[in-house]
Amino acid sequence: MPSSAKPAKAKIGVLGASGYTGSELVRLLLRHPHAELALLTADRRAGQEMRTVFPQFSPFQLPTLVSIEDTDWKKVKLDLAFCALPHATTQKVIADLLEKAPKTKVVDLSADFRLADTAAYAKWYGHEHHAPKLQREAVYGLVEVYREKIKKARLVANPGCYTSCAQLPITPLLKAKSIDPDEIVIDAKSGMTGAGRSAKEEMLFSEVSEGIHAYGVGHHRHMAELDQEFSLAAGRKVVVTFTPHLMPMNRGILSTIYVRGTRGKSPEDLHAVLFKFYAKEPFVHVLPFGQTPQTRHIRGSNMTFIGVARDRVPGRAIVVSALDNLVKGASGQAVQNMNMMLGYPETTGLEQVALFP
Amino acid sequence: MPSSAKPAKAKIGVLGASGYTGSELVRLLLRHPHAELALLTADRRAGQEMRTVFPQFSPFQLPTLVSIEDTDWKKVKLDLAFCALPHATTQKVIADLLEKAPKTKVVDLSADFRLADTAAYAKWYGHEHHAPKLQREAVYGLVEVYREKIKKARLVANPGCYTSCAQLPITPLLKAKSIDPDEIVIDAKSGMTGAGRSAKEEMLFSEVSEGIHAYGVGHHRHMAELDQEFSLAAGRKVVVTFTPHLMPMNRGILSTIYVRGTRGKSPEDLHAVLFKFYAKEPFVHVLPFGQTPQTRHIRGSNMTFIGVARDRVPGRAIVVSALDNLVKGASGQAVQNMNMMLGYPETTGLEQVALFP
Amino acid sequence: MPSSAKPAKAKIGVLGASGYTGSELVRLLLRHPHAELALLTADRRAGQEMRTVFPQFSPFQLPTLVSIEDTDWKKVKLDLAFCALPHATTQKVIADLLEKAPKTKVVDLSADFRLADTAAYAKWYGHEHHAPKLQREAVYGLVEVYREKIKKARLVANPGCYTSCAQLPITPLLKAKSIDPDEIVIDAKSGMTGAGRSAKEEMLFSEVSEGIHAYGVGHHRHMAELDQEFSLAAGRKVVVTFTPHLMPMNRGILSTIYVRGTRGKSPEDLHAVLFKFYAKEPFVHVLPFGQTPQTRHIRGSNMTFIGVARDRVPGRAIVVSALDNLVKGASGQAVQNMNMMLGYPETTGLEQVALFP
Amino acid sequence: MPSSAKPAKAKIGVLGASGYTGSELVRLLLRHPHAELALLTADRRAGQEMRTVFPQFSPFQLPTLVSIEDTDWKKVKLDLAFCALPHATTQKVIADLLEKAPKTKVVDLSADFRLADTAAYAKWYGHEHHAPKLQREAVYGLVEVYREKIKKARLVANPGCYTSCAQLPITPLLKAKSIDPDEIVIDAKSGMTGAGRSAKEEMLFSEVSEGIHAYGVGHHRHMAELDQEFSLAAGRKVVVTFTPHLMPMNRGILSTIYVRGTRGKSPEDLHAVLFKFYAKEPFVHVLPFGQTPQTRHIRGSNMTFIGVARDRVPGRAIVVSALDNLVKGASGQAVQNMNMMLGYPETTGLEQVALFP
Repeated sequence: MPSSAKPAKAKIGVLGASGYTGSELVRLLLRHPHAELALLTADRRAGQEMRTVFPQFSPFQLPTLVSIEDTDWKKVKLDLAFCALPHATTQKVIADLLEKAPKTKVVDLSADFRLADTAAYAKWYGHEHHAPKLQREAVYGLVEVYREKIKKARLVANPGCYTSCAQLPITPLLKAKSIDPDEIVIDAKSGMTGAGRSAKEEMLFSEVSEGIHAYGVGHHRHMAELDQEFSLAAGRKVVVTFTPHLMPMNRGILSTIYVRGTRGKSPEDLHAVLFKFYAKEPFVHVLPFGQTPQTRHIRGSNMTFIGVARDRVPGRAIVVSALDNLVKGASGQAVQNMNMMLGYPETTGLEQVALFP
Repeated sequence: MPSSAKPAKAKIGVLGASGYTGSELVRLLLRHPHAELALLTADRRAGQEMRTVFPQFSPFQLPTLVSIEDTDWKKVKLDLAFCALPHATTQKVIADLLEKAPKTKVVDLSADFRLADTAAYAKWYGHEHHAPKLQREAVYGLVEVYREKIKKARLVANPGCYTSCAQLPITPLLKAKSIDPDEIVIDAKSGMTGAGRSAKEEMLFSEVSEGIHAYGVGHHRHMAELDQEFSLAAGRKVVVTFTPHLMPMNRGILSTIYVRGTRGKSPEDLHAVLFKFYAKEPFVHVLPFGQTPQTRHIRGSNMTFIGVARDRVPGRAIVVSALDNLVKGASGQAVQNMNMMLGYPETTGLEQVALFP
Repeated sequence: MPSSAKPAKAKIGVLGASGYTGSELVRLLLRHPHAELALLTADRRAGQEMRTVFPQFSPFQLPTLVSIEDTDWKKVKLDLAFCALPHATTQKVIADLLEKAPKTKVVDLSADFRLADTAAYAKWYGHEHHAPKLQREAVYGLVEVYREKIKKARLVANPGCYTSCAQLPITPLLKAKSIDPDEIVIDAKSGMTGAGRSAKEEMLFSEVSEGIHAYGVGHHRHMAELDQEFSLAAGRKVVVTFTPHLMPMNRGILSTIYVRGTRGKSPEDLHAVLFKFYAKEPFVHVLPFGQTPQTRHIRGSNMTFIGVARDRVPGRAIVVSALDNLVKGASGQAVQNMNMMLGYPETTGLEQVALFP
Repeated sequence: MPSSAKPAKAKIGVLGASGYTGSELVRLLLRHPHAELALLTADRRAGQEMRTVFPQFSPFQLPTLVSIEDTDWKKVKLDLAFCALPHATTQKVIADLLEKAPKTKVVDLSADFRLADTAAYAKWYGHEHHAPKLQREAVYGLVEVYREKIKKARLVANPGCYTSCAQLPITPLLKAKSIDPDEIVIDAKSGMTGAGRSAKEEMLFSEVSEGIHAYGVGHHRHMAELDQEFSLAAGRKVVVTFTPHLMPMNRGILSTIYVRGTRGKSPEDLHAVLFKFYAKEPFVHVLPFGQTPQTRHIRGSNMTFIGVARDRVPGRAIVVSALDNLVKGASGQAVQNMNMMLGYPETTGLEQVALFP
């Protein structure tokens, strides 16, 4: 899959390389034929080598970690920067970067540019948006839905992991008006990397292993993103029930979604809508009717698996989707966006087969 | 908690001691002050010592395992037999036992006597009921609902683990007519011991760790039991949506249950119903409103934790329940039934505090 | 097991109740017939309820957590205090406690009083001993070795988890002069609770699951304790090779110990020494020759399992021991010490059978 | 890394594609630019699609599984066959294959051709060798040691996972006569995929999670392979102490190896030997002195990490090595052998970076 007219190598930066989405970007980009890892930042680990922070990179030569403050955006001349910083710290960083290096493209993995409505942002995140002007420019980066816009974008807001896992199966059904928008229940189970790498008591192995629990019941921030995208897809306001759970696995989200078909739409009809919608997509695979996916079978890959089964309650269907929260739910999706924005073939660097067992 | 008039020790048998519910019964009964473990059966392991099958019992003196065929029911004179055999093998065994030793009481942990309607049994289990007469005598053994009947019963059908976890929070709400019986969605996550100890490829560590999946989507056998008990509680036919999942932990079920309050019943109202219903129950604990439980906090104990939270969709609530499938979901519940049937204080032998972490 | 002459209930305090050894003490003492939990301290959580810090205690009435500073030792009049504080903070706390309430007995679970040689303490822990006078009074609390001294002690230093797991199999062999003291290699594998509950990046679930690693290679602090006890047992200086590993399980230590029999002592001879030494001990079980233990079979119990097998290298044997680091390796051992110090039967409150699976 | 003179694609067969080493071969070969997966066999699953046996392959077109009996070796004209069959079934299969298609090359992942001495084979495996003539032709396939022989071989015996993990650090030290061959203790910890995919009770999730145990103590079959290779390296008979353990992770072996330097060789000297030996090897990485590896940092990659640390016992060192038992310990090593045998660059298809977390 050559990329004829493009520069052989694009200069890439990863801001926030000491977290899990940062290291996952490095993992993928190390094997991307058109990426040159030119900049890695990690404020608290500045001056250290990546192999100290993530020993799996010991055999590789990588740039020394630097702080964002010490980075001269004009000088590094990045073709594209991935921003894997915590929520609420990102808007100012990107505004500054784009002011100084306006030709650099940006894929932001935080939630900072996902909500088009800055009032909704302020409500859910508890503070004013710091870059409302840039927000207008930002494109929501779910490639399967917004591919053409993404190709032309300078700033892409990479979707959240939970929302990706819910949108991929539900958005086509809402667009096709095949399900009732008022009866969607999303029960999501996530692996622990979704909670990040910060040292918190509730993330310790002994707190997390051998158990499962719901959290953010009734008030998780990803709801704002779901509302926005599902309302756009349905052409009306949609508010879904969504409960996230944390469970003892590293990677993966499984969303078990309970829906009701509209006006006689059977579970088989819903399956047909999804099967057709994704027939040519490289990273979404719809299983045969009645089969449902397991998270382990997409681990480490950029693939999403979707299954549809018949509920025994007439008119209702159960849709199950699975993806790796660090790949299709974050860094793989981000590389897919990069490929679109820089004109590389969509699957470049993302061909890795799932690691099972 | 003395048991004045009763015999100091009851002669107890465990049929099927080589499985997980069998070993869990032995664990509990070893420390039950009124239980004498007089008989342990395990057909395929007959002649072996329990410590060979379960090395945690190495320090204890226990009866050698025997086969059921070689057991003389008249001679062993059990006060009570726990039957922890696979589904569909139990009806004949118990019929034979009760014919030869009609004074022995029986707690059956299989599904064989749970469905009062033998036609429903035949439909869900694929063969005729082998002891329809005994079925009429069997009492469904959820102590919190059928305590008085259980005290007088000779044959008690111990509830299923999934159904216990769903009934304890939902039955009181249906009885109080506080929730809409037509909009109940139960999303259940179970640890692996729920799948038993038989050697199957899909239960291997490498198949199960690092992932989660739904199974029996739309057609799990526990549905029949849920239908029966929920319909009784509601006083009308109830068919719920129920999806079980398997996940990498040994013990525990978490049920996330989506309900709609009837006629203006708020989530707080539902919480109040449950709080009142369980105020004096030793083994069901309702958390403060808005808090939801974690399976790890009931591990190894006979406790059920229940939480109720407000959904952001008006009128809807999210009820979460957690229990240990091997204790309150099986063997602990069975000992609780035994205590009722033999006249011991309800909590005897079941006082163990949860093992966390 | 009644305790005739003793007070029905002893007033017990747990200092440091918000950590894992603290919660494990509470778990055990809640079911100890002679313990009244009169005081629970946790400086950072002072004012909170135990159920907030450890939800498994939600159904129980327990004292509100207080800070040590706010505790009036004269007023609370504890019969015995368990000290489950971090290393290096304990010496001053206990000195103060015993000055103000000299009749209170103390079981200290930290390393602060384990080394009789305060110079060795200073070397390994990097600061002077803060209570050298008390150190002279302290008794090393491995009941199986120092039972009689412990019965008369006011201050007992509870052994470390790794050292308990190594001493129980090796000390009798050194005492019997059955193994070469210069060729002992201890390869130990520990569950994560051994690393405590403090929020550190390297203890996060995603850092720890799906892997194993050695740490403290060549310089782990438990070595000082091993040196002291093994030298005492052998009657000469002993320096062993010891490598601890951390692995993804909550509880348990497995020590695989490589030894050489002295002057023709066969592996069977070593087994015989251990079998005889522990024949009447309630909490150490020696498996039949050739069998080796699994940590899961002692989980949650106060039991230690020991196995001895023949190496194929002539003259060498492989000794494997397993215990639960939070029970026999910490809090169970501490309660065993309490029973000795207060005159209760040794096994009181420690009868719980291992939780497997 | 183009392969100029070679055919663009080699026809490859995987015999035994329904096991873990089989599926791992498929995972790697799907992304190998010079491999065409022409044949997949799985006797018990013949007629099924690979996606049924391993759902992670659902998005891929792969040959339908066939039985070996139904395979016409002359017709399929494989360039190379990987044999991932159980031990003891392989000798006859390969003899038949090579008789009918003598130009096909074979990499055998079983133990059937690893022991040059057919008498040793008979002793350890309990039956006569079925292809002693072929045995003479077989080359032991540890590329780092036998690279040149492998390039010319028709039949390569892929090393065992435990032995690879021990040989890579120890063989260079024995060759350099830097360690005492009579004092090598190897304590190995393996993930569960090393035990294969056959349905056995002791491999169930609930039997294996939350614990660790040694097995085959004193008599594991990999010892024969260690004896052979270590004796060759040392130029004299070597018998090592080796204890394998099973622990709850999917992939990875950690070997903690206790050695004594010869004639004043310090731990730093041993480190220098290894560092130099592997300076140019693409798949073995020696960490800086004093650092030791974690299995998680090589997961999914073909990399081996080796560390050397100083023991506090004078003259002794602790060497720790880590590899993924399914990659460098089996299928990755096999593809590395294939690359050598067919003339492709050594790293082709094996560039994948480790998947952590």
